[in-house]
Amino acid sequence: MDPKKTRDLPGKTIERLSQYRRILFNSTNEGKTNIYSHELAKVMNLTPVQVRRDLMLIGYSGSQSKGYVIKDLIALIGSIIDSKEPQNVAIVGMGNLGRAITSYFSGKRDRLSIVAAFDNDPQKTDRIIGGVPCHHINKISEVIPAMNIKMAILTVAPEGTFDVAKMLMNAGVKGLLNYTSVPLTVPDNIHLEEYDIITSLEKLAFFVKQDFDE
Amino acid sequence: MDPKKTRDLPGKTIERLSQYRRILFNSTNEGKTNIYSHELAKVMNLTPVQVRRDLMLIGYSGSQSKGYVIKDLIALIGSIIDSKEPQNVAIVGMGNLGRAITSYFSGKRDRLSIVAAFDNDPQKTDRIIGGVPCHHINKISEVIPAMNIKMAILTVAPEGTFDVAKMLMNAGVKGLLNYTSVPLTVPDNIHLEEYDIITSLEKLAFFVKQDFDE
Repeated sequence: MDPKKTRDLPGKTIERLSQYRRILFNSTNEGKTNIYSHELAKVMNLTPVQVRRDLMLIGYSGSQSKGYVIKDLIALIGSIIDSKEPQNVAIVGMGNLGRAITSYFSGKRDRLSIVAAFDNDPQKTDRIIGGVPCHHINKISEVIPAMNIKMAILTVAPEGTFDVAKMLMNAGVKGLLNYTSVPLTVPDNIHLEEYDIITSLEKLAFFVKQDFDE
Repeated sequence: MDPKKTRDLPGKTIERLSQYRRILFNSTNEGKTNIYSHELAKVMNLTPVQVRRDLMLIGYSGSQSKGYVIKDLIALIGSIIDSKEPQNVAIVGMGNLGRAITSYFSGKRDRLSIVAAFDNDPQKTDRIIGGVPCHHINKISEVIPAMNIKMAILTVAPEGTFDVAKMLMNAGVKGLLNYTSVPLTVPDNIHLEEYDIITSLEKLAFFVKQDFDE
């Protein structure tokens, strides 16, 4: 796919590509070689038109009689999503969540690694925590550019979120994964992902309550 | 909305309703009173047809000239997503992630509360952790029905995931939020949400690498 076009893919499309790929991996494990847009649409509860539109965006169209060739589609999505060069990641806030994410992530991906941690608690700094050197937050402006870190995970206390995000962006970070409960607003040239645990629990609660609403 | 119909709403639609609601809250804060399907579609990168289809599923259609009335749509989505009765939640695995989620969640929602924790480490059991009583895992079959718990959050070590999920389901849990790195397969009458931190980071990595692919 033309790199110019790849660049223009919107976030929600990337998210769906990643979800399509997970479904395709499952289908491969079940021994399937081909899949139709209406099958992908059903699992995702999208219209088949939406699925075909997403895949046409990455330059792929299936045959009407055989659908999509699963292995080709997996390879194509991988060529778009996966990075060729290793990417360094920092994590800020080594409380329970920060330590949990660091150890969870350790060794899971070759091309994405958490290479630096930051905290403002002297008990935690200048030590290795979960295999990652933990620096004081006031070293952000020094360590981030030195280690060519372009992405950071935020797991700080709510009141620190805004200031830490600003320090990271000033130091050259272009992507933030925000796990604090404070929503961030960032300039157009910064990529932001926010995940709210409560949303997941609310969705689950919806389905569980249905069962008892008779 | 007819409860029979609400029940039939698919998970991906509920997720999108929750995302629409978040956008609507933001629009209200910006002083807007009405919004068009193409505006919602743009933020979510969906087709306007997909947005209209989702909202027609919950029995709502806007006017062509004025779009949707934001406050009515927020109220309608709330009446579908939010539960009337309080729902009790358990968390299993009081390591870093379990403790982080418990304290994060504390007091965030009136109708959803974490009321019991479980672990197999005697250092952690028969104590209050993060405001929640922590029991030994072998008390699951006793505590879950006694406290009318229908939902559980899994933050155990990978090797324990499968057994703990089974114990919870046997004890009457109908909804599982799985934060372990082990994917679960559950019977049709159980609701499962899985969240993979790596997917979020991969999506972020995609956008960050674009900026340097020139």
